[in-house]
Amino acid sequence: MPTTTPHPDHTPSTCAPPRGVDGARQRNGRGDTIVAISTPPGVGGIAVVRLSGPAALELALQHLAVDRLAPRSAVHCHFGEIDDGIAVYYPKGYTGEPTVEFSCHGSQYVQEAIVQALVDGGARLAEAGEFTLRAFLNGRINLSQAEAVADLIDAVTPAQHRLAVSQLRGGYAQELKALRQQLLDLTSLLELELDFSQEDVEFADRTELHQLLSRLISHISRLIDSFRMGNALKRGIPTAIIGRPNAGKSSLLNALLHEERAIVSPVAGTTRDTVEETFNMGGLTFRLIDTAGLHHTDDPLENMGIRRTIAAAVQADVILYVHDATRPWTDAVEDLQALRDDAGVDIEGSKHLWIVVNKIDLPEAVESNRKLGVAISATQGIGLEELRSTIIKAVSADMASSDQVLLTNARHYDALGRTKAALWRVAHGLADGLSADLVAVDLRDALYHLGTITGEVTNDEVLGNIFSRFCIGK
Amino acid sequence: MPTTTPHPDHTPSTCAPPRGVDGARQRNGRGDTIVAISTPPGVGGIAVVRLSGPAALELALQHLAVDRLAPRSAVHCHFGEIDDGIAVYYPKGYTGEPTVEFSCHGSQYVQEAIVQALVDGGARLAEAGEFTLRAFLNGRINLSQAEAVADLIDAVTPAQHRLAVSQLRGGYAQELKALRQQLLDLTSLLELELDFSQEDVEFADRTELHQLLSRLISHISRLIDSFRMGNALKRGIPTAIIGRPNAGKSSLLNALLHEERAIVSPVAGTTRDTVEETFNMGGLTFRLIDTAGLHHTDDPLENMGIRRTIAAAVQADVILYVHDATRPWTDAVEDLQALRDDAGVDIEGSKHLWIVVNKIDLPEAVESNRKLGVAISATQGIGLEELRSTIIKAVSADMASSDQVLLTNARHYDALGRTKAALWRVAHGLADGLSADLVAVDLRDALYHLGTITGEVTNDEVLGNIFSRFCIGK
Repeated sequence: MPTTTPHPDHTPSTCAPPRGVDGARQRNGRGDTIVAISTPPGVGGIAVVRLSGPAALELALQHLAVDRLAPRSAVHCHFGEIDDGIAVYYPKGYTGEPTVEFSCHGSQYVQEAIVQALVDGGARLAEAGEFTLRAFLNGRINLSQAEAVADLIDAVTPAQHRLAVSQLRGGYAQELKALRQQLLDLTSLLELELDFSQEDVEFADRTELHQLLSRLISHISRLIDSFRMGNALKRGIPTAIIGRPNAGKSSLLNALLHEERAIVSPVAGTTRDTVEETFNMGGLTFRLIDTAGLHHTDDPLENMGIRRTIAAAVQADVILYVHDATRPWTDAVEDLQALRDDAGVDIEGSKHLWIVVNKIDLPEAVESNRKLGVAISATQGIGLEELRSTIIKAVSADMASSDQVLLTNARHYDALGRTKAALWRVAHGLADGLSADLVAVDLRDALYHLGTITGEVTNDEVLGNIFSRFCIGK
Repeated sequence: MPTTTPHPDHTPSTCAPPRGVDGARQRNGRGDTIVAISTPPGVGGIAVVRLSGPAALELALQHLAVDRLAPRSAVHCHFGEIDDGIAVYYPKGYTGEPTVEFSCHGSQYVQEAIVQALVDGGARLAEAGEFTLRAFLNGRINLSQAEAVADLIDAVTPAQHRLAVSQLRGGYAQELKALRQQLLDLTSLLELELDFSQEDVEFADRTELHQLLSRLISHISRLIDSFRMGNALKRGIPTAIIGRPNAGKSSLLNALLHEERAIVSPVAGTTRDTVEETFNMGGLTFRLIDTAGLHHTDDPLENMGIRRTIAAAVQADVILYVHDATRPWTDAVEDLQALRDDAGVDIEGSKHLWIVVNKIDLPEAVESNRKLGVAISATQGIGLEELRSTIIKAVSADMASSDQVLLTNARHYDALGRTKAALWRVAHGLADGLSADLVAVDLRDALYHLGTITGEVTNDEVLGNIFSRFCIGK
């Protein structure tokens, strides 16, 4: 946390050591040697068992009777009585520690027997994400890269994958590092003034400070703004299907899902917090937000459902309003006006809204309804292809218009928000002529939050949250 | 097939070239470069994509933009825009051909994108077992070792695993090679006589020949005899649960299965011909043979079921006869006498037979029935532990008494049977004073069948059968 009473011997340009790292080090028993099957669970041609820690080489030689291992060389060897395979020894592996990777036959029995032999020899079963945690603790990767590893493994669509690779290869970490350095320089100057506070000097030119601050704030704001799109690409574009009861919302949903059944991917509860219904179209993920039917009622319970529908529309980037072609067009107009005027949903602005006129195959369908929007029959499969390509075209155009770095991580979004708030306080403080020591408090706060993103500052709880998302063996 | 009209320039000590290899070579398009995900399907920490064939190195460098690869060195590199990982180049890999193995992040997307990039570059998706087939065709392993690879991957129990590793590391291949060499020497001598057939000489001492033949036959017989146990260890010990209707056969089965539910392993239809019910106890696999209830009836249909039960008892190594404790003990005695006397089941000899007295918890249970065998209540879980340990102890003792090499492969069993038959014909031919050319026909037949085991002789159909058992990527 910010230094409120800096000592004279305080060296301002030195950042505080990463918080919580020692704790995490202890919790994860760094110093011991860990082992896990790193390839997907099950039976296959080959599997890889990873062993990492100070005793990795010794354990491999002694307990699998492997007879010779040279750094980074793929050596064919017997694994005791268990199997024949390839072992590679890395003096500094993925974790930054001595690591041996055993490529064995992909039988359940062989995989488990190799792990068991190493555990019997003194290795410990690795916890979820523990190899990557060690890579972070040993400075091989920063925290946002560690998070990118989990994102990369979870990636299903090309867009999700591209974002994860970009973050893994550095992403905005470099940008943040540069921002942080500028902040550190600023803080140094201010804290230097504190050392000479009796003399009422100003080392830091207040105008320059202001300019630097507004550059920083606008840069961070751009990153924050990119979160909506980054998050949509990563977690799915929030999509609401709304309309009156029996307009055919569920039929439309099923029709959309059905056509793409092969790539429907409910996000598993094991790696994410919740299970949400998502579907992929045109290389993009759409995340459905549940809605109840819109209609006028005095039943308080039903009204609650309708309020939830309105809330869904507020959250959504894509709204599909389903209109029953056999009903008068005024229904749709009433509902959308209510959404705009009563609930303040920006249906003409940033959101994509389509009126989907369903049931056009029925004889009772009112012909003029076709003009309202995209005419379909969800049950007969009419017009679905047109609807789908219309949606993809519009949403993709949105995505393509942005070639900036995208913020995808909710934790980073939160940290950047806090950084920005602290920087605002700094700016106001300077404007109000607050003393350097008070301004420095907020600067340290901004530095702290910025540091949590790449892990210069961290704590056990944050690390625990991040690495619990990982699978065992990574 | 055997050479019936040998030419004068026939070189007897040279074996015919492996049959069908050229066909298989063509069918499998050797010469092209194949690629597959070799690790188990699904998502995990890491996955391995294997690329093998003459263009492997070139494809890796050009189409994954990997920038440098040294033989057998684990090199960290970018895989184009797809991922960062480790690549290892083997000038002669598992297949005996240039091979590159890519260790990437275990996301579905990354795995598929790497394979796709290589396919776009000109590689072909590997067929099931094609890497191992190439290893065989390139002389890296013999055919019985190739079969051991599939067995090893399928192994679930320690016993199955031990057998597969032993076969993979050579097993009886060396033994068979030595046998085959002796047969070849014998054939050479006999065929030499053919070249001098006008002169009526005998190069081969007939007494020595006889001795050699009987040594060979007895050796092959021992291997053939070991098949019953080898096959039991590999596929499961054939076990029949028999008894009268309502004695509690199904309850006993369920009780045995239930206790070991975690390791019940129905053999998947994808890698074996049939799905059979098997369960593991004490590190051994038991394979259940279906039986109907035994009882006296005049119904021809029911009698057919009973005949099947008797057939099951004949096949079984372990028979559990379930007796209802509320019924007189004479029921059991009658049934077992009938099994022995009418069906000829060797219940006092090589088979393990236990009388399991079920329902001992019922008030109507006849106390004296307890003396018949192991008293249990399948539904109440009484006596099951004793029954289980009794079975395991007896069966394990059986297994332990044999430290010889065990034949486990039905194809090998069949080939050895044909070899033995041909050798018998040779022995009889020699005893009957048949001419060398006629004896040589049978000797060539024996050599042929022996050669099919390790693959000195083979054909496309055999190769097709063997490698279709493999998974893709091995």
